[in-house]
Amino acid sequence: MSKATALIALPDILVEAAVKIALEEDLGLAGDITTRATVSDCVLAKASISVREPGRIAGLQIARVAFRLLDPAVTFRTDISDGDYSKPGDTIAHLSGPAAAILTGERVALNFLSHLSGIATKTHAFVKAIEGTNAHICCTRKTTPGLRAFEKYAVRAGGGQNHRFGLYDAVLIKDNHIAAAGGVEAAVKSARAHAGHMIKIEVEVDTLEQLDELLSLPVDAVLLDNMSMAELSEAVKRIDGKIVTEASGGVSLDTVRGIAETGVDLISVGSLTHSPKALDLGLDFLS
Amino acid sequence: MSKATALIALPDILVEAAVKIALEEDLGLAGDITTRATVSDCVLAKASISVREPGRIAGLQIARVAFRLLDPAVTFRTDISDGDYSKPGDTIAHLSGPAAAILTGERVALNFLSHLSGIATKTHAFVKAIEGTNAHICCTRKTTPGLRAFEKYAVRAGGGQNHRFGLYDAVLIKDNHIAAAGGVEAAVKSARAHAGHMIKIEVEVDTLEQLDELLSLPVDAVLLDNMSMAELSEAVKRIDGKIVTEASGGVSLDTVRGIAETGVDLISVGSLTHSPKALDLGLDFLS
Amino acid sequence: MSKATALIALPDILVEAAVKIALEEDLGLAGDITTRATVSDCVLAKASISVREPGRIAGLQIARVAFRLLDPAVTFRTDISDGDYSKPGDTIAHLSGPAAAILTGERVALNFLSHLSGIATKTHAFVKAIEGTNAHICCTRKTTPGLRAFEKYAVRAGGGQNHRFGLYDAVLIKDNHIAAAGGVEAAVKSARAHAGHMIKIEVEVDTLEQLDELLSLPVDAVLLDNMSMAELSEAVKRIDGKIVTEASGGVSLDTVRGIAETGVDLISVGSLTHSPKALDLGLDFLS
Amino acid sequence: MSKATALIALPDILVEAAVKIALEEDLGLAGDITTRATVSDCVLAKASISVREPGRIAGLQIARVAFRLLDPAVTFRTDISDGDYSKPGDTIAHLSGPAAAILTGERVALNFLSHLSGIATKTHAFVKAIEGTNAHICCTRKTTPGLRAFEKYAVRAGGGQNHRFGLYDAVLIKDNHIAAAGGVEAAVKSARAHAGHMIKIEVEVDTLEQLDELLSLPVDAVLLDNMSMAELSEAVKRIDGKIVTEASGGVSLDTVRGIAETGVDLISVGSLTHSPKALDLGLDFLS
Amino acid sequence: MSKATALIALPDILVEAAVKIALEEDLGLAGDITTRATVSDCVLAKASISVREPGRIAGLQIARVAFRLLDPAVTFRTDISDGDYSKPGDTIAHLSGPAAAILTGERVALNFLSHLSGIATKTHAFVKAIEGTNAHICCTRKTTPGLRAFEKYAVRAGGGQNHRFGLYDAVLIKDNHIAAAGGVEAAVKSARAHAGHMIKIEVEVDTLEQLDELLSLPVDAVLLDNMSMAELSEAVKRIDGKIVTEASGGVSLDTVRGIAETGVDLISVGSLTHSPKALDLGLDFLS
Amino acid sequence: MSKATALIALPDILVEAAVKIALEEDLGLAGDITTRATVSDCVLAKASISVREPGRIAGLQIARVAFRLLDPAVTFRTDISDGDYSKPGDTIAHLSGPAAAILTGERVALNFLSHLSGIATKTHAFVKAIEGTNAHICCTRKTTPGLRAFEKYAVRAGGGQNHRFGLYDAVLIKDNHIAAAGGVEAAVKSARAHAGHMIKIEVEVDTLEQLDELLSLPVDAVLLDNMSMAELSEAVKRIDGKIVTEASGGVSLDTVRGIAETGVDLISVGSLTHSPKALDLGLDFLS
Repeated sequence: MSKATALIALPDILVEAAVKIALEEDLGLAGDITTRATVSDCVLAKASISVREPGRIAGLQIARVAFRLLDPAVTFRTDISDGDYSKPGDTIAHLSGPAAAILTGERVALNFLSHLSGIATKTHAFVKAIEGTNAHICCTRKTTPGLRAFEKYAVRAGGGQNHRFGLYDAVLIKDNHIAAAGGVEAAVKSARAHAGHMIKIEVEVDTLEQLDELLSLPVDAVLLDNMSMAELSEAVKRIDGKIVTEASGGVSLDTVRGIAETGVDLISVGSLTHSPKALDLGLDFLS
Repeated sequence: MSKATALIALPDILVEAAVKIALEEDLGLAGDITTRATVSDCVLAKASISVREPGRIAGLQIARVAFRLLDPAVTFRTDISDGDYSKPGDTIAHLSGPAAAILTGERVALNFLSHLSGIATKTHAFVKAIEGTNAHICCTRKTTPGLRAFEKYAVRAGGGQNHRFGLYDAVLIKDNHIAAAGGVEAAVKSARAHAGHMIKIEVEVDTLEQLDELLSLPVDAVLLDNMSMAELSEAVKRIDGKIVTEASGGVSLDTVRGIAETGVDLISVGSLTHSPKALDLGLDFLS
Repeated sequence: MSKATALIALPDILVEAAVKIALEEDLGLAGDITTRATVSDCVLAKASISVREPGRIAGLQIARVAFRLLDPAVTFRTDISDGDYSKPGDTIAHLSGPAAAILTGERVALNFLSHLSGIATKTHAFVKAIEGTNAHICCTRKTTPGLRAFEKYAVRAGGGQNHRFGLYDAVLIKDNHIAAAGGVEAAVKSARAHAGHMIKIEVEVDTLEQLDELLSLPVDAVLLDNMSMAELSEAVKRIDGKIVTEASGGVSLDTVRGIAETGVDLISVGSLTHSPKALDLGLDFLS
Repeated sequence: MSKATALIALPDILVEAAVKIALEEDLGLAGDITTRATVSDCVLAKASISVREPGRIAGLQIARVAFRLLDPAVTFRTDISDGDYSKPGDTIAHLSGPAAAILTGERVALNFLSHLSGIATKTHAFVKAIEGTNAHICCTRKTTPGLRAFEKYAVRAGGGQNHRFGLYDAVLIKDNHIAAAGGVEAAVKSARAHAGHMIKIEVEVDTLEQLDELLSLPVDAVLLDNMSMAELSEAVKRIDGKIVTEASGGVSLDTVRGIAETGVDLISVGSLTHSPKALDLGLDFLS
Repeated sequence: MSKATALIALPDILVEAAVKIALEEDLGLAGDITTRATVSDCVLAKASISVREPGRIAGLQIARVAFRLLDPAVTFRTDISDGDYSKPGDTIAHLSGPAAAILTGERVALNFLSHLSGIATKTHAFVKAIEGTNAHICCTRKTTPGLRAFEKYAVRAGGGQNHRFGLYDAVLIKDNHIAAAGGVEAAVKSARAHAGHMIKIEVEVDTLEQLDELLSLPVDAVLLDNMSMAELSEAVKRIDGKIVTEASGGVSLDTVRGIAETGVDLISVGSLTHSPKALDLGLDFLS
Repeated sequence: MSKATALIALPDILVEAAVKIALEEDLGLAGDITTRATVSDCVLAKASISVREPGRIAGLQIARVAFRLLDPAVTFRTDISDGDYSKPGDTIAHLSGPAAAILTGERVALNFLSHLSGIATKTHAFVKAIEGTNAHICCTRKTTPGLRAFEKYAVRAGGGQNHRFGLYDAVLIKDNHIAAAGGVEAAVKSARAHAGHMIKIEVEVDTLEQLDELLSLPVDAVLLDNMSMAELSEAVKRIDGKIVTEASGGVSLDTVRGIAETGVDLISVGSLTHSPKALDLGLDFLS
């Protein structure tokens, strides 16, 4: 598994749909009443989007679409790519065209960019923290409703990997499933029987005893939840590379390297998407 | 202006639409393949949602709808209201009904609840920090795309006030509008002429000189951006209660009380909605 | 407040959405079966849209989009702007391109144009009737379901002002709200406490006694409903410019000037949008 | 052809979709900020909808859905049916339930009811004017964008008949189609060849000469456009019952009876739907 | 009624909407993860779509839109038209442009093309089988949910005619309607009274006795359901050209010619749309 | 892998959305004009849906929703489950309630039921044909646009397994991907690097040489395309259970058992979904 992977772009029809929702939310039925009252249609302007704190950028494609949907006459040029690092003062995009459209689209474009760049930046901090280990950082389903595709993309932009996208594309068996199914063996067998051959199965365990019970079953991965470092190390030893190992539960920048050094394959971090800090970005007109 | 205001509920059709989007995002075309493979339709369960850190709750109405849309047989009972304080261990909702629907809806419900409760909690921290002053905390348009109505609601749940909802419901004239219009007087007059009588007008100023120029114009509020405490105090003195005063720019829990004590009416805080920390919540089955 | 204001254009994404609904309504699943059976794709034509009675035009942007969505090869040229006056026989738009697309789009384009021009024309008649007074004509929420943004735009095109766009962007307290709140003071205070600082508050009164009760409260405007001219004059005197005054109730072209001369600031007229007469327009092919 | 026909109700999924659009338009993202600030959720009320001028009612089903979508606890009772006559002061619906939902839904419900009742009332005036003749009144495609299904329904409620619903359900060949097809015979034959056997074909003629040319062709109806009474009479004579005859063009209440007495089968009136006068209706709370 | 009719194209807004649904279904939130991981954005390719079995093509317009929505840089060229015959090995479309977009759009484009071409091919086999008779082949409402417009179009591409598009555009009275109405005369009269003058009425009969009862009533067509050849011949004789005759019920390629030779005008075949065999098509890259 | 698996139901919000589309398609703007003209709202009826040829049923849940959306007063009772076998004459559902709603919903309900039951029946024939072998039947992405979730469900109802649902939930590398990536090793490694740990990777090979190249690479499954029985047997031998084997290409009921006996794990059959024969079903009123 290489860490140096190109970033997969988002389907355009997905981006346009999300940007339309955001524009409709901001424009309402009356539109940008300030700009229209104060800025003539014929005023042209140049502007730039720059970062005010160091970080990884994500969402340039979305920002571009926001301005294009408002006015195709706005040109949006960027010399960087999503996932790139930018330091304070760096310009990440150059805009030129009708001033009114730039002003009207500013907030929608920046809201996407700063939110997604915040996720990419936070992800990258975790990726950096485990550099040199064999582990990878991945996300969870703890995403902002309506934005999962974009937040998972931002995680990739930050160098992280994606866990399953939803309830539909992989099986993840937790304690309540096991209880309802009447034991882990019954749960795994039923899942294996129901799922097609292109579906992976992961099972969550909290203890080494549960792990032992799992080891003889046909699963693809195990989620080692809320284990101590010692338990994680022991779990990795017992699993011995036979299935993918994922650690989760209260992972922070302080603890992540220790977890990685236990030898787990993946460390999933909910806070990448449920509690990112927006990257500070600004749009400035050039006079 | 009283601070003790009841919380205005969200229109149900708005809530249902947002929950549907979130459920579709999580269910995809195949649905919850784990639960369906392991949990029989006839298994009933009781579960509770509880908080794991102190905070203000927001989103109970949304969580209720999430389970109802999956299966009307799930009952959702709560003894608290949005805006209420909960301490670690408190149960904020009781669920009973088909186990499958509870498991399938868990993540969507918690994603809304933890995100919105995080905003309410952060808002309330700012509100608390300025207690005893005459200032109010308010939000901005720096919201997560698609969730503005819900995030603005969470700000109210935390005791904050809402700034304008979008570009359409109030005029906010910034430096680029002034430049394009040919001066602040021209900008304000044009805005006044375009806007209906139910639309308020606010103007952003960075300096006391700009403020002086504004004072003779028919505006409802002034946004004092990135001013020092001294400048804010002086601005409040010059304005002398004639229009509403709003301070903004890099407001933190460390600085907010000082700002409030300058006598401004409102302090707007972008990070309430662009960088909240999700409140830690969990759903547990009762055995 | 100047009466000579430029017309604020509608957000394009709003226009496209409305035109699509109208086209889908007219085309159904089978499309224009008459045109397709009788007009070859390669037939080109020139046509013009002209007015058959004097009026103010509104909706040119929408008509343009209707033809463009059917076939980008249709060119739509106009030498006038929404809000302009046209006399019978005037051509307001020139079309050229595939005859089939022009025939198919004709009715949708004309339905928007004639409806919105009817509103602009009726609005302008009221505006004209009060020329020289200080009053302005404004609209209400008595609009056609689904078309509020467009009808409010047409009111502006006719020289009128917009009242609030919906229940969400301003507070208007009526008798039933006052009764439920336990008096006008309680109602106003509660509204002031709930509404953000960018929200205006208007209260409806039917009598001078109610007005007196209101005068000490923090409201932005008063709606003087169904008052006689004498009452209106007296109300204006008592208010003395402290808040905006709006007269409403059974306003007609016969009575509007008298009402304006009482000194009220605004006269709201429901019939502008609930009972306009479509402007007679036609599309003719040029041979 | 009997004139006494029961009224065909609208598909519920159509009504719900239209009401949702109207509610979303009126509620925006913040909802009814006035009612929520002033009316507690627990206040119950009784109210009635009554008419203030004589007319035919249409839209009761839609009004009912508006309140139900806001709050299923609102009961909506009516003793009349769409199409019934009501005189000033008549109550057409009784409401009871949460006061807040009644206040919030009032305008959407009344906007539908007054607009559609206006169409039904106007239609009925034309129907009444030709009583005793063999002619029927019918509508056109000159409808308000987005509301065609509802306006055509209101025409039926007023005793009128529906012309085609769109470009898709019947063929109507006009002069430009004839010109493009190379003559009326070519146009009719091509239409006959393209259209399925369940599609009717009507041709518009302006002169008796054009009518003569048409009489040998396989058409179902002829639209006699802008003819004088004398021409209409002559046309009816020449057609001699072989095909359905429709008169159109500048029909008013003054001229419609004369037109009907020429013996035409149908008289189509664009103003039924493009220029109705809203019926004056009000919602009053009962104390 | 001529059989040689040009094919009426589908409204573009209809095609785009359907293609978007299909692309969203295939791309989900993550997009084409295979292509994006393996094919660089800058790789260009040429490809062709060819047929692997003889048939009539339908859906070229839709395939073109599928690739355009993914990437406007893909060119789609075809030398044939929908409805044309293609033999195995024939290329029906040439593609060139970004390889990634061609790979991603391949399945959606082929799914439409092979399904609709299968319908056109099957339709044409029936049309061919009755060549030389006066009968026409037509479709039914037994279509795939969501695809009716496209499947009816494919029937036309195969040389067939369209029956009504839905419950809304023509009246078809069956036995249960007759029973509920209290007899065929009551049913027809009620339908005639309710339906506008542009709506045709057809009645289904199973026996010659029912046919006799119908003959004096004002109907446009009769559906002779599940009759023997002898009964059909007798029915045609009794009807004697006064109304359109349609035979239906278990029509196969073996029986259709015999049915046509009874003299009926139309033969409706449900299996054209409910059980077509997809035409075998492939997309090949040219090296 | 057990073959006896319970059937996973479809998410209700998915079913309702699809049924609404189908009802809107059939009802248009005017609704069921036949039924409404002939069947009074107060007529009640009992009806049954029965099969006219042997088969496996799929779609009962969808049919139930179709009637419920039209009128909640219709009761829909069934004693069987999707996936069950029914012989000619068997009643699969009992309906009672308003006759009008039953008549209006009949075609939409039957269109879903007969299409999906056709797929389940065809799938089951293939499953039956390989009984006793270790192979499973699975579907492809050759589905009807817009119906993939339902068709994949019907495959499961027939005892088949689902291949990936779209381009997003699994990687399937074909020859063009390999060519663009510069060889199979590069393609697999790039896919492995891009895909998350819950994503499976399958590679298509046409020859044993390609298979050999693949065997050392980290893939989960191999698609053996268009191989002879001898090649398949040899491929299975070389793979020796290390990865999942799937055979595809021109599979028919005649050839499927032979293919299964080569020892492959899965046999994918495109015609299950691209060319099913609708199961003959009827709805009859009980008198």
